[in-house]
Amino acid sequence: MEAQEIYADRRGSVTDHRIKTDICIIGAGPVGLFAVFEAGLLKMRCHLIDALPQVGGQLSEIYPHKPIYDIPGYPAINAQELVNNLVEQISPFQPSFTLGERVEAVERQADGSYYVVGSENTIIHAQVIVIAGGLGSFEPRKPEIPGLSDFEGRGVSYMVKNPEHYRDKRIVIAGGGDSALDWTVFLSDIAREVTLIHRSDSFRGAPDSAEKVFALAASGKIQLLLQRNLSSVRGNGILNQVGVTDKHKQEQLIETDALIPLFGLSPKLGPIADWGLNIDKSAITVDTTDYSTGIERIYAIGDINTYPGKLKLILCGFHEAALMAQSAFKYVHPAEKLSFKYTTVNGVNTF
Amino acid sequence: MEAQEIYADRRGSVTDHRIKTDICIIGAGPVGLFAVFEAGLLKMRCHLIDALPQVGGQLSEIYPHKPIYDIPGYPAINAQELVNNLVEQISPFQPSFTLGERVEAVERQADGSYYVVGSENTIIHAQVIVIAGGLGSFEPRKPEIPGLSDFEGRGVSYMVKNPEHYRDKRIVIAGGGDSALDWTVFLSDIAREVTLIHRSDSFRGAPDSAEKVFALAASGKIQLLLQRNLSSVRGNGILNQVGVTDKHKQEQLIETDALIPLFGLSPKLGPIADWGLNIDKSAITVDTTDYSTGIERIYAIGDINTYPGKLKLILCGFHEAALMAQSAFKYVHPAEKLSFKYTTVNGVNTF
Repeated sequence: MEAQEIYADRRGSVTDHRIKTDICIIGAGPVGLFAVFEAGLLKMRCHLIDALPQVGGQLSEIYPHKPIYDIPGYPAINAQELVNNLVEQISPFQPSFTLGERVEAVERQADGSYYVVGSENTIIHAQVIVIAGGLGSFEPRKPEIPGLSDFEGRGVSYMVKNPEHYRDKRIVIAGGGDSALDWTVFLSDIAREVTLIHRSDSFRGAPDSAEKVFALAASGKIQLLLQRNLSSVRGNGILNQVGVTDKHKQEQLIETDALIPLFGLSPKLGPIADWGLNIDKSAITVDTTDYSTGIERIYAIGDINTYPGKLKLILCGFHEAALMAQSAFKYVHPAEKLSFKYTTVNGVNTF
Repeated sequence: MEAQEIYADRRGSVTDHRIKTDICIIGAGPVGLFAVFEAGLLKMRCHLIDALPQVGGQLSEIYPHKPIYDIPGYPAINAQELVNNLVEQISPFQPSFTLGERVEAVERQADGSYYVVGSENTIIHAQVIVIAGGLGSFEPRKPEIPGLSDFEGRGVSYMVKNPEHYRDKRIVIAGGGDSALDWTVFLSDIAREVTLIHRSDSFRGAPDSAEKVFALAASGKIQLLLQRNLSSVRGNGILNQVGVTDKHKQEQLIETDALIPLFGLSPKLGPIADWGLNIDKSAITVDTTDYSTGIERIYAIGDINTYPGKLKLILCGFHEAALMAQSAFKYVHPAEKLSFKYTTVNGVNTF
């Protein structure tokens, strides 16, 4: 592991954490992780930075327990298990990580290398940058209710981080997808009262989850309000009522301790959108020869890039990582000749 | 499975086996196999034809027991195990197979579809052809020794299929690459006597394998003859002597039960080279948008294709298969609109 050296802050008073590496990979999802392997085969060291507190990207953050069916060679694999396997696969190449820190800026140096500057003042000095940012960072889709943001953290939240927080409370969940269904079922055992509100009378989520919700409603364990919309939030600093309208715009007030709108996540490119890269529909356009961005020494792989024929599949990101590494080699080892070697012949040789 | 119907032969006397399918995949190696999965997700059926008697291509034929290290998500996987997993992964889509039969011709029909004609008179009628032929068929590179072919199968072989065959035998291995080194090390535990002959005094194979070979020679476990060339093979119907010359052309005779020249494999495109495809250095040039060949309805994926940046990696072939399937859809289901679905949301739905 590259030592994390502490320098006097180049800006002045604050101390920053400066890390030297060959390749700075922005995003530690499955594609960013696998890029460490392809880089490592070519004797290039990697440092990964991710805004999330753990590696795995979407797989670990959004659906760790869901099976994935389209990873070649795995008829089915749990998302978190795939992440764990990738971490094991790259471990011979000793990647280093900065987690829970967002990238705020990228600064080109006179010699062509880059400083990647994080929100906590970490500075990563790298010869090459690989953006493997998935769909960027995620923001919950919020319903349009006057004053909703005033109650965020005061009864309103868009994600269930710790179910125990709702023990013996009265809660209102809104939404019709898998998250809304799954959390309704799960929290019906923990909370004192659960109300599920959905605008339609059919659910988008898995049929067997919907069935469970209907059964809970039929047995009186939860309250199910279909063809209803969230209309208002009320409380004196802290949420204590949610207003719900039916199709006749008739409003009904529900006493509650918590409102959890689960309308999905919407991707944001975040600050990456300001770096002068070519962006097409929230994705970075790249050259399929090596997945370079057009800005020298900056590559983009995985769901964050786009090109003719692009598919947002993990397996495509793996391919992109392999071609990227071949191209990045010339910046990291300018004096050496790249020779392509198969791991089946020589195995994995580390540094 | 598509029924294999027997028609009267369209050519005259012989009966042919005509098979109807959506996509005919030529080559049942890992990439050809995975193409069934990507096609199946889009409701396209596949029939695979391969000259080898089993699926798996190079993996099963050449190195079934070697571990592979660069399949994303597998820190290491035995080649045959990867093949088995791929077969399981595609089984919901019920591919059909013609094995042990070489493709001899491709005939375009008036409606744009193709007949793929095999060497045993099988005819596959498909809307789309996907060439996933790996490096084509393989031929071992043979040293030029008079009468060598007379001893093939009678002491001379170019591949180690079953190491047990050499237990307690005297063997001569020739070559300086990884195969020669690896088998020398491996067989030194099994065979009674092992002699390794190499024309130079340095090896092309992995340095640590070469080191092992030098150590075995130093401890007397094997005989290492450097700067020597194979010059003759002798025996009465069955090989029992191999002649070896030094740089002064002095011949030395070695008593042996087996000679294994390991000078690598040389790929042959075979009849595919005559189909009017664009060929560059024994590979088919393709468009990276969809891995189409330029001849309508014919795609090429995996090691048999080439394009700027191409790497001959299995993981790249997987990506190519995914993009190919999206493009082939319009020929198989011309009246339907393609909608891209994630298997994480809907699972794998079969026909």
